[in-house]
Amino acid sequence: MDLVPVILSGGVGSRLWPVSREMHPKPFIQLPDGQNLIQKTFLRACRLPGVSEILTVTNRELFFKTQDEYKAIEGADCAQSFILEPFGRNTAAAIAIGALKLAESHGPEAQMLVLAADHLIQAEDAFADAVAKASQLAADGWLVTFGILPHYPETGFGYIQTRSDTALGHGLKVERFVEKPDLATAEGYLAAGGYYWNSGMFCFRVGTLLEQLGQHAPEVLEAAAAAIERSDISTGKRHRSLNLDPAHFAKVPDISIDYALMERSDRVATVPCDIGWSDIGSWIAMSELTAPDNDGNRLEGEVLTHASTNNFVHSCERLTALVGVQDLVVVDTPDAVLVAHKDHTQDVRHIVKQLKSHGHSAHLLHRTVNRPWGSYTTLEEGDRFKIKRIVVKPKASLSLQMHHHRSEHWIVVSGMARVVNDDRELMLNSNESTFISAGHRHRLENPGVIDLVLIEVQSGDYLGEDDIVRFEDVYGRATS
Amino acid sequence: MDLVPVILSGGVGSRLWPVSREMHPKPFIQLPDGQNLIQKTFLRACRLPGVSEILTVTNRELFFKTQDEYKAIEGADCAQSFILEPFGRNTAAAIAIGALKLAESHGPEAQMLVLAADHLIQAEDAFADAVAKASQLAADGWLVTFGILPHYPETGFGYIQTRSDTALGHGLKVERFVEKPDLATAEGYLAAGGYYWNSGMFCFRVGTLLEQLGQHAPEVLEAAAAAIERSDISTGKRHRSLNLDPAHFAKVPDISIDYALMERSDRVATVPCDIGWSDIGSWIAMSELTAPDNDGNRLEGEVLTHASTNNFVHSCERLTALVGVQDLVVVDTPDAVLVAHKDHTQDVRHIVKQLKSHGHSAHLLHRTVNRPWGSYTTLEEGDRFKIKRIVVKPKASLSLQMHHHRSEHWIVVSGMARVVNDDRELMLNSNESTFISAGHRHRLENPGVIDLVLIEVQSGDYLGEDDIVRFEDVYGRATS
Repeated sequence: MDLVPVILSGGVGSRLWPVSREMHPKPFIQLPDGQNLIQKTFLRACRLPGVSEILTVTNRELFFKTQDEYKAIEGADCAQSFILEPFGRNTAAAIAIGALKLAESHGPEAQMLVLAADHLIQAEDAFADAVAKASQLAADGWLVTFGILPHYPETGFGYIQTRSDTALGHGLKVERFVEKPDLATAEGYLAAGGYYWNSGMFCFRVGTLLEQLGQHAPEVLEAAAAAIERSDISTGKRHRSLNLDPAHFAKVPDISIDYALMERSDRVATVPCDIGWSDIGSWIAMSELTAPDNDGNRLEGEVLTHASTNNFVHSCERLTALVGVQDLVVVDTPDAVLVAHKDHTQDVRHIVKQLKSHGHSAHLLHRTVNRPWGSYTTLEEGDRFKIKRIVVKPKASLSLQMHHHRSEHWIVVSGMARVVNDDRELMLNSNESTFISAGHRHRLENPGVIDLVLIEVQSGDYLGEDDIVRFEDVYGRATS
Repeated sequence: MDLVPVILSGGVGSRLWPVSREMHPKPFIQLPDGQNLIQKTFLRACRLPGVSEILTVTNRELFFKTQDEYKAIEGADCAQSFILEPFGRNTAAAIAIGALKLAESHGPEAQMLVLAADHLIQAEDAFADAVAKASQLAADGWLVTFGILPHYPETGFGYIQTRSDTALGHGLKVERFVEKPDLATAEGYLAAGGYYWNSGMFCFRVGTLLEQLGQHAPEVLEAAAAAIERSDISTGKRHRSLNLDPAHFAKVPDISIDYALMERSDRVATVPCDIGWSDIGSWIAMSELTAPDNDGNRLEGEVLTHASTNNFVHSCERLTALVGVQDLVVVDTPDAVLVAHKDHTQDVRHIVKQLKSHGHSAHLLHRTVNRPWGSYTTLEEGDRFKIKRIVVKPKASLSLQMHHHRSEHWIVVSGMARVVNDDRELMLNSNESTFISAGHRHRLENPGVIDLVLIEVQSGDYLGEDDIVRFEDVYGRATS
């Protein structure tokens, strides 16, 4: 029997702004130990006994970035497959499409272990143990959830109520799912016992899941099958991917798997577990990953304090100074800084809403933007000029392109560049430069084995990213 | 009788860090209306009846910057003279040297009006009125202080106690100077009446001042005279300046004019006045120059708030977001951000002390550094490269120079550059570039009438500012 972890990578995590952005969502936020949540999830899944392939469901804009993150992990050599969504469509769609694809490739006896890309699980052995139990229940035809033993009356999660009279050997039958409670209700749950946090992780036998979906949510299953049929499949050296067709994917109902299936089925069980789980749902949860100093301050980066206690500071590149303050969260990024009270970190998403409604790019992008070939960082913009640092990965190449309104100076600061500039092809070593006139076709490529770092100074009347004509693109963007 | 305002421009204003830095001290901080404190002081002094010349005492490193600030003021065409200090040496030294120079140029009947460069005076007519009264008292041989009518029991200032039985027509005789009081004492002063804040502004007849200094502080007067004798005088088209010799200036006792003279003399009077005076001694004082919104937030720059009240935010270039916070001061600059409680803004100087003791440059410089010819801003530094934006003022020129360890790419983004590059001289228009090899002599000059803006990309093994050999320099720095 094959067990295939299915990593759902959706959601921005807007409560972790300004580090999270739409194009740099929560699974990609680096933790103090240097790894990010999606890397940790991939590695944890890959280490489970019997796992040889991992299916990731993610937004297509994050495909290359996700592959890069997986590639950067040491000691995780699972095969990778991807389902690429043109936009988010809730969990029922992702899970149904995943199940249909796994039925095709692995048969109905295969099991899928649904994991969120942005949760932290610190007790890995206990997690593996819980998965083994869930797998046995799934083999018996149960739809299995993972019920997290609650240590305090959290009001931000839904709860799973179990029936203690129906132990199933490795778990408990689920009585019902309950919505996020108020504090008194949550305290009642803890006092009563038999209630667990709904972690959003699942284990299903593929055949059971499809049968149950057909019974309780046939409209999801049918639309999912139709979307797959109209979608493109591509196979690379290291991965297979299904690129979902937007028009057909949009027809899959926008509903969670909890509403669509789990709350309707009577075949639902839970494996109670205590696995050091956190959804890193706010800056408070993030701050707990950094040890406090003698004043209770948890400080990342270059920070000076005076008469300040119990604060959390995350400072990337600049100096942060605290004077006479308590219980604050200060998060500094190159283009935005957040100052929040610890009791209000859930409200950070209101800032993101304001940014969206103002059309401000700070909810969407960081100053550094990732591309399939590497990244660029805008260092400065002014009247008629823009300066970028461009990093091109070894063997990677930008498209053959042309700009109508801007010319570009390129100066190599490290690595080696192969450049097409109009009708010439040249090699630039570090400290060499070239000038690309407006209207000239050009291409930038890193033929070497270390990163190519290049400073680009653009000048012209119009410097928008949309002044680009792509002639050839190895990433399939020539027509976009 | 000549009245010569003497502007004392010393002190960093470290409580206004991170906007104030040693090389960008408090007089240069821009207020919300766009002018800075030294400009306001110069303009206010220049508008006084009978004033045709202003003497500024400042650190020699701030000479060019101060001239630039004066030049940028509309409608202030007083003659400028300067006394340039190699380091700060307290007020007695500055005032004694100023008096000796004025005695030489204007004779003993001339009056000096001593003003701080970093105070704000919002009632200009009342100020002019107080100066007229002080001038009459000074003509009668009094050493005149300006006593600010206290509106609340401030504990951060010294007080002047007057004798109400000795009205002098335009002022009051001073009974004694008292140190910064505690709150109860300050409240007692206000209740008793006859106490005024010591503003640190003075009006003296030059002859009287020298005679009184000779009597009460002869060691100051003698050392001041000796320092002048050993110093260089230079005369430009728009100014005269006395560049004090460091060794002899160091021999002038480091003492305030209050201790050296005012507290010892029995010829001291005060002109009580109510002139909208503030020493802008902290971020609280600065915040009061910005009107509050409906939530009591005083916001400068791009700021978003949620559930936050009574905060002050000064944000230069980036987005600042506040969530659920009260009574904070947040000051954002390109390389450092301060988060302080309003009750602790006096303690900001402790951060500056920490920076100094760590040898951190953030107490000294901004990311933008002023030079006689314009300014440069470090946009990015990395391994073996550094990127600067360089702004050269019209008709200004950098020195003819050479670097041993770095080469430089120059790209003009606006304006016109005249460049010496080894044995060539060339003109670069915007969007043109040149490459300066390590070891080549070069010079950059702006022959035009608008600012020249240039991006410099340096590369090499060593990129320190001290890798420079200057051959010719219009600012006299070739040997430094």
